[in-house]
Amino acid sequence: MNTKILLNERPNGEPTLQNFKTVKVDIKSPEEGEVLLKTIYMSLDPYMRGRMNDAKSYAKPVGIGEVMEAGALSQVIESKSNKFKVGDFVEGRTGWQDNPTVSANDLRLIDPTMAPLSTSIGVLGMPGTTAYVGMHNFAKPQKGETLVVSAASGAVGATVGQIGKIFGCRVVGVAGSEDKCNFTINELGFDDCVNYKDPEFAEKLKAACPEGVDIYWENVGGITFDNVMPLLNDYARIPVCGLISLYNATSLKGGETDRLPLLFRQILTKRMMIKGFIVFNHYDQREESIIALSNWIKEGKIKYKEDFVEGLENAPNAFIGLLNGKNFGKLVVKVNPDPTI
Amino acid sequence: MNTKILLNERPNGEPTLQNFKTVKVDIKSPEEGEVLLKTIYMSLDPYMRGRMNDAKSYAKPVGIGEVMEAGALSQVIESKSNKFKVGDFVEGRTGWQDNPTVSANDLRLIDPTMAPLSTSIGVLGMPGTTAYVGMHNFAKPQKGETLVVSAASGAVGATVGQIGKIFGCRVVGVAGSEDKCNFTINELGFDDCVNYKDPEFAEKLKAACPEGVDIYWENVGGITFDNVMPLLNDYARIPVCGLISLYNATSLKGGETDRLPLLFRQILTKRMMIKGFIVFNHYDQREESIIALSNWIKEGKIKYKEDFVEGLENAPNAFIGLLNGKNFGKLVVKVNPDPTI
Repeated sequence: MNTKILLNERPNGEPTLQNFKTVKVDIKSPEEGEVLLKTIYMSLDPYMRGRMNDAKSYAKPVGIGEVMEAGALSQVIESKSNKFKVGDFVEGRTGWQDNPTVSANDLRLIDPTMAPLSTSIGVLGMPGTTAYVGMHNFAKPQKGETLVVSAASGAVGATVGQIGKIFGCRVVGVAGSEDKCNFTINELGFDDCVNYKDPEFAEKLKAACPEGVDIYWENVGGITFDNVMPLLNDYARIPVCGLISLYNATSLKGGETDRLPLLFRQILTKRMMIKGFIVFNHYDQREESIIALSNWIKEGKIKYKEDFVEGLENAPNAFIGLLNGKNFGKLVVKVNPDPTI
Repeated sequence: MNTKILLNERPNGEPTLQNFKTVKVDIKSPEEGEVLLKTIYMSLDPYMRGRMNDAKSYAKPVGIGEVMEAGALSQVIESKSNKFKVGDFVEGRTGWQDNPTVSANDLRLIDPTMAPLSTSIGVLGMPGTTAYVGMHNFAKPQKGETLVVSAASGAVGATVGQIGKIFGCRVVGVAGSEDKCNFTINELGFDDCVNYKDPEFAEKLKAACPEGVDIYWENVGGITFDNVMPLLNDYARIPVCGLISLYNATSLKGGETDRLPLLFRQILTKRMMIKGFIVFNHYDQREESIIALSNWIKEGKIKYKEDFVEGLENAPNAFIGLLNGKNFGKLVVKVNPDPTI
């Protein structure tokens, strides 16, 4: 049987378990060009919250009754494609299910001897490539600049900050607990990290950036951006990668003063650049990013932390927690045992 | 004597004539490396309003009692520099004065046989280069895209729109009168132009952009941006060149709903790019811009309109009018007769 987790109803604000529905269906035999997979590691990422809304965005929403979207690392169980043979490991956007049958064209082969399989959906997968292409194309870090990265211990943020260190930046993280902050400093080598839940967040962030902020990597929006905004330097770059703090918002009303004119005056006088981007538009740089990140990992310059959840059935709860920052590191669902461990 | 117009006091909101003070001083004999000039054409531009404030910006404010800043086209009257001889025409940032003595290093030679002298402070000067570098580096117009340009009949806007036409865009201007709109359509070849003072501005702008907006050239802020914002397409680019509607504002408070989160969600989901810029950071492209613009003028692809004011003494009044859109075309003060006409 194939267990699938479907979108049952659209959330109003924070998702609940009732928004999801688990069904078991017969395994679909692969047709010509298809493969049957066994899911091993499934990725949970904040962007999936956007797919649950029926709103115009960069991707089509998941329909009611459709399987939730996700990238996953799987093993080929049966193949009707000459691209993959039984036993191969593959990565692709195969969704919240444990025995999917999909087109071989949408999958990439993963070499299990190069790195742990789980990295193919993490630091050597979509989140790692996101960090790489955003830094490479939009942040353009220069030696001596100050980089502030929000969601600093998360899959993208941790990689962004370490790339910043490689390029000689002062790197200041923003995260949601003392443990996460300590991790980014002690394990990842950030220069500083500030807890946004600290009542003195504004003062501490300012103190951590004595020369202002040249690059702000936006993963979250909300209070973090509010407090970075007055610290931005001339020529500041703001890659907008995510807005986790807004994803569950039922209204996009901010406070009672419209800061749009203030922002635009800053953009003009400081000659700032703000750029939204989605990694899927930059997959021409995927190969390059994976090579660069692999090398940095081998050199010990990039480390990664994974937060494993056991069992597909726990994915909805883990996803709800992800949007509240309950994960610590890249959130990965272990759907089936990893045969390489 | 040298007549100088000084900043007498800082404006609170809209500038008044009392903010300026005219003085006559002895002409300063040029020292080694300096030249004495007779100003012929002086440029008035909206950015000068920013220099009157005592606020951190991209340039130092003009001090109280200091001569107001401006670019101007002048003739050399006396030279202690081997760069220029008496009779040469030069352009530089020589300020609101009619007989300045300045360093030869800050001037560029203008060939009076190439184009009318006044163009060296207009379409072949700072405003033209602004349009060129902003389009070239940030707007990156593509055939078939829709470009909306605010302050469309002004020195920068008129050139921006015509460059957009050269690159195959649908070009929609926004201006402050029916006359200005008709001019951009009938003389400059814009596809459409909407008067922002029209009570049906929002509807008419939307109708003029049936395929949305790919590039919004921001010269003004305020009501124009408010109504462009919902029309922006995926991958929209917004070069922020000026914010005329805010320059006289005593507070940057917008309405009572903070639209910052809304803007950021648009930036992310539409993968937009917003970039503030100042032409002075891009003068490595000045020569290139002047060659390109000269060629387009010769080919009849770029036209320009100048709005002349007679006499340096009328500069303050003309400048106050400029901030209210009273000019029609590039505002130029005729300080002394043009010997080439």
